[in-house]
Amino acid sequence: MRLRNKPWAREKIDAHPQYIIPESFDVKGHWHDVFGNNNPIHIEVGTGKGQFVTGMAKQNPDINYIGIELYESVIVSALDLLIEAEVPNLKLLNVDGSDLLNYFEKGEVKQVYLNFSDPWPKTRHTKRRLTYKSFLNLYEELLPEGGEVHFKTDNQALFEYSLKSFSEYGMLLTYVSLDLHNSKFEGNVMTEYEEKFSAKGQRIYRSEAKFQPHL
Amino acid sequence: MRLRNKPWAREKIDAHPQYIIPESFDVKGHWHDVFGNNNPIHIEVGTGKGQFVTGMAKQNPDINYIGIELYESVIVSALDLLIEAEVPNLKLLNVDGSDLLNYFEKGEVKQVYLNFSDPWPKTRHTKRRLTYKSFLNLYEELLPEGGEVHFKTDNQALFEYSLKSFSEYGMLLTYVSLDLHNSKFEGNVMTEYEEKFSAKGQRIYRSEAKFQPHL
Ligand SMILES: C[S@@+](CC[C@H](N)C(=O)[O-])C[C@H]1O[C@@H](n2cnc3c(N)ncnc32)[C@H](O)[C@@H]1O
Ligand SMILES: C[S@@+](CC[C@H](N)C(=O)[O-])C[C@H]1O[C@@H](n2cnc3c(N)ncnc32)[C@H](O)[C@@H]1O
Repeated sequence: MRLRNKPWAREKIDAHPQYIIPESFDVKGHWHDVFGNNNPIHIEVGTGKGQFVTGMAKQNPDINYIGIELYESVIVSALDLLIEAEVPNLKLLNVDGSDLLNYFEKGEVKQVYLNFSDPWPKTRHTKRRLTYKSFLNLYEELLPEGGEVHFKTDNQALFEYSLKSFSEYGMLLTYVSLDLHNSKFEGNVMTEYEEKFSAKGQRIYRSEAKFQPHL
Repeated sequence: MRLRNKPWAREKIDAHPQYIIPESFDVKGHWHDVFGNNNPIHIEVGTGKGQFVTGMAKQNPDINYIGIELYESVIVSALDLLIEAEVPNLKLLNVDGSDLLNYFEKGEVKQVYLNFSDPWPKTRHTKRRLTYKSFLNLYEELLPEGGEVHFKTDNQALFEYSLKSFSEYGMLLTYVSLDLHNSKFEGNVMTEYEEKFSAKGQRIYRSEAKFQPHL
């Protein structure tokens, strides 16, 4: 993602602690207090400009969503959407997905979404892919037994890699679509990247993979 | 596959027992005698007109191939190819893949190929798909531990189904290509269906899945 310099971004983020939960808050283990209810919590790692989480939060008022995005200059767009949408069941977190364990307790998150994650095509960058085994290990730490990772991308190589990576990690593939927009899948909420790439005629790939009990 | 009536097919098959091994032969456990060597044995289930197994046998003289095809009227075309090719490391078997255990002993087969298997798109026909769990169970019975199933198809729905089926069976996905003909895969041998469908611009999907030790 191309990053424009937005010096005002930090200021804007700090001015909205009710939407972008400040890192300094002691959130780990306290997300149900943040939302004020005990509904299940789903997170998206690499949420970008927030179209997906905002749409999902509207569609599913009984699920709490947290959009996690590394870059200030990007998450401010998600903040704008959230301010406009006025959905109580969505929060944002401006942190690195690699540090998830600092912000969530085991079992606190019910589901992980990854959408159009950076493909990192070079082999020497494999470890940076959000479906690399060290990330899967992080997600497994957050999720209860049987927790799921839902993944969409237009990137063929990343999808091929990710299916193998899920399998190699011992996850169960419970859903695979090789052309989501021409499938029977219902209730799809498009991300910004999904709109852009599908408009160009790119196929959208989607999978669901489930962590299995360790034997 | 459209079946033309070929009354002479049975006669032709019976006239070439050195190529199409007669069912009446006691082959189970004796395939290394049939080939006269101890090279590994790979089988293709649903071999059709035999272009794949013939090409593979030429390419890999140190591997023995067996093409298994249910229909007499189809396997005679494979017989013609085999007679012409004169490859000692290829045999044909005119039997139903469901009966594999009658013809092979545990560990006698090193690898199973499935190419452009009939898709059986209707849900009520799921059990007929050659990647349905009962077939995977058959293959597992034939293969040594860590044995692999290599699968190609142009059929999107069958590929999606099969990836899930392999995963659900506990197999490890070790290779996935969502566009084989535009991939780095080397040494691909095209099947009849593969030539036909790729000429029409269809993508070819390919996977390798490995049986895992039972725990
Ligand atoms: C290609 S964009 C996709 C954005 C959005 N999910 C979509 O589908 O439109 C990937 C996003 O992931 C963010 N990202 C990448 N690595 C991250 C990490 N380790 N932690 C949090 N966000 C990350 C990037 O900053 C970028 O905004
Ligand atoms: C669609 S054709 C593909 C042929 C060839 N593999 C190719 O890729 O060109 C499928 C073939 O599998 C055969 N077949 C289907 N079910 C079978 C079974 N249970 N045992 C053996 N052959 C079978 C059919 O007769 C047919 O020739």
